[in-house]
Amino acid sequence: MARLGLNLLTTEPSARDAEVTRTIAMGKGVRLERIISHGQASPDGFWYDQAEAEWVTLLSGRARIRIADQANEIAMVPGDTLLLPAHCRHRVAWADPDQPTIWLALFVDGDLKVP
Amino acid sequence: MARLGLNLLTTEPSARDAEVTRTIAMGKGVRLERIISHGQASPDGFWYDQAEAEWVTLLSGRARIRIADQANEIAMVPGDTLLLPAHCRHRVAWADPDQPTIWLALFVDGDLKVP
Repeated sequence: MARLGLNLLTTEPSARDAEVTRTIAMGKGVRLERIISHGQASPDGFWYDQAEAEWVTLLSGRARIRIADQANEIAMVPGDTLLLPAHCRHRVAWADPDQPTIWLALFVDGDLKVP
Repeated sequence: MARLGLNLLTTEPSARDAEVTRTIAMGKGVRLERIISHGQASPDGFWYDQAEAEWVTLLSGRARIRIADQANEIAMVPGDTLLLPAHCRHRVAWADPDQPTIWLALFVDGDLKVP
């Protein structure tokens, strides 16, 4: 029987203290995550360096992403999408402290291409 | 170099005449699609019957999904999520005619599980 799952825009009170990540769906070589932050940026000097390719969109809030070896930060608003190949080092430089920033991130083993 | 892709909330004028589907990202056994409709429901008697599992969310608008052999329609608002196993026959019973309804759908070969 098909039933509605989690509403992705439902925030979690604990996200005020730390980023909250929740796995939304999983398949072979595929993982979908929802991440909520309230102004939390990545710790200074920390870079995500992932074995999987990641596609990410912003469902609410505002944020800026920094890519290693890339001069400008990437500002994201709801609906914006970003493809991060495996081992593309990146960090969250800023997330809006005044509202929940909700990410939907798809992680895939191997290559992910945007047509 | 990482760059922003399509903003998923950008509508397409042609969606007023017919549903518009766009592939957003593709990987091995994985496909992410954005679908925009302006009140278009599935044709009478038509059922989607897919070999892939589908996870879908609503980014904007409103819609109701009908699942074969399930009495009640499933009403969806933005952020709502629905998992449709492979060959779970379904159709769009209604989409809001007064605003664009924007879906984000993930299709995966094999099983997709919601924790």
